Amino acid sequence: MIPKRLVECVPNYSEGRREDVIEKIADCFRGRENIWLLDVSPDKDHNRMVVTAIGEPEAMFNAVFDSVKVAAELINMEEHKGEHPRIGATDVIPFVPLRGITIEECVELARKLGKKIADELKIPVYLYEEAALRPERRRLEVIRKGEYEGLKEEIKRPERHPDYGPPQLHPTAGATVVGARKPLIAFNVNLGTNDIEIAKKIAKFVRASSGGLSFVKAIGVELKEKGIVQVSMNLTDYTKNSIYRVFELIKMEAERWGVPVVESEIVGLLPAEALFDSISYYLKLHSFDPLKQVIEMRLLELEGEK
Amino acid sequence: MIPKRLVECVPNYSEGRREDVIEKIADCFRGRENIWLLDVSPDKDHNRMVVTAIGEPEAMFNAVFDSVKVAAELINMEEHKGEHPRIGATDVIPFVPLRGITIEECVELARKLGKKIADELKIPVYLYEEAALRPERRRLEVIRKGEYEGLKEEIKRPERHPDYGPPQLHPTAGATVVGARKPLIAFNVNLGTNDIEIAKKIAKFVRASSGGLSFVKAIGVELKEKGIVQVSMNLTDYTKNSIYRVFELIKMEAERWGVPVVESEIVGLLPAEALFDSISYYLKLHSFDPLKQVIEMRLLELEGEK
Repeated sequence: MIPKRLVECVPNYSEGRREDVIEKIADCFRGRENIWLLDVSPDKDHNRMVVTAIGEPEAMFNAVFDSVKVAAELINMEEHKGEHPRIGATDVIPFVPLRGITIEECVELARKLGKKIADELKIPVYLYEEAALRPERRRLEVIRKGEYEGLKEEIKRPERHPDYGPPQLHPTAGATVVGARKPLIAFNVNLGTNDIEIAKKIAKFVRASSGGLSFVKAIGVELKEKGIVQVSMNLTDYTKNSIYRVFELIKMEAERWGVPVVESEIVGLLPAEALFDSISYYLKLHSFDPLKQVIEMRLLELEGEK
Repeated sequence: MIPKRLVECVPNYSEGRREDVIEKIADCFRGRENIWLLDVSPDKDHNRMVVTAIGEPEAMFNAVFDSVKVAAELINMEEHKGEHPRIGATDVIPFVPLRGITIEECVELARKLGKKIADELKIPVYLYEEAALRPERRRLEVIRKGEYEGLKEEIKRPERHPDYGPPQLHPTAGATVVGARKPLIAFNVNLGTNDIEIAKKIAKFVRASSGGLSFVKAIGVELKEKGIVQVSMNLTDYTKNSIYRVFELIKMEAERWGVPVVESEIVGLLPAEALFDSISYYLKLHSFDPLKQVIEMRLLELEGEK
């Protein structure tokens, strides 16, 4: 049975090379009631792994806590080397609301987990994004500044004190960042040109930081193998700016240079709602109710009610 | 838990007025394991009710058989009056493949049910649509010709003999039609004009029977209250002609008269796949995999695997 309340969690651990450690961390999410492990992605260069799991909030809380404990036992940050910025064995834990749970409840879950990690495992914890207690800590890069090595000293300064736990790193596990954020959609649009300047200009027009659409982050990148360029984006709140609006705005801007949009791609997971919203736009469906009319959505609703 | 194999069944019964009979028929689908009753629509003028249920094929087989038995006990066709064409207490039973089941397996299910109804309840059964054993019986209107009253005599003629059971109507329950069909999408497109001739012409251009798109049935109708006209359609195989293609073709034809498409509507249920297909067209998503990437679809897949 699929639970009525569902949260996604995408924790990152500082191990991407030792198979046995990777498996032991992933095992914390396997064979557990009300937890579905969707993906385990270790990266050798980064020496880091990303777990994607969805599940009932309480079950997820327990699974993640167990994984933090396992990571603290098996990963020694004193010996860790890798390209990706990091401050701890379990580096960062974001909770994402999926169904029947609000972002506020995810914030609560994140803070509760942070407190437990600090109390029981003696690992200092920072809260970020929506769960942040200090406004500057909404941004992960602010918390991770100086990384594990630099934070050893920095953590003693009051402005770098953790939100929970002592102002000193755990001797092997470092520190951990816990937080909550809304579902993020990774959306890329490929342009039929090899002129990177056009991709960069369009990215600038589209992203929130330079006057475009709110809740859109965008950069222009080259796809060298394909010989074309791409506007690569994160849509950080699809309920405020839909995929179709972002896509059509890019088409409109590309038109200025006579550049065609040749393909787009969605990377990773997204909620069905984000797509139904766009299809309603294109087909002019003014009174469409996906939760009642789409068989699969109806099934999930009915299953939740049982 | 949602079963891996799912069938939809939309049986029609010749009762739309007596509350107690309507409830007793609907009860056959309630509180049963692996059956979800989605809708019960009684119609007083038609004196007819339509049940929409989804469920595991074996469970559905049993639920529908029970409902045919109840209808045969509680409905007397000798006393039945209603506007809708009908030949029996349980008039028609279509099975529709939803997930993990083929149309061929639904044909088998329909024939097995037809045989059981004839053998155990002594009700003659005709097979229609994909389950038809005689080509002309694919069409429901051929089987129902003359209705209950006319069929009393007609059934004795070899060309009107039922596919299962004796060549005579059940004394109170009449005869029943059982069959299988692919999911059908009821899709309507509203045009910004009150000229019914334009809707009729576009319907003609679009529908299969006059040279348009295969698996599309279309008529032009007036929406008097709104003061506009509509192309009203059934898409009988959305895997062969997608919603977006039908919609864009109508837009293109309407352009000839400078008539705008003002709205469209999907009536009733449809499979998510039919929408993902269209969104992939509009957003140029060339490598999108909804079963893996849409959280809700992924959940249903995972649930099925357990």
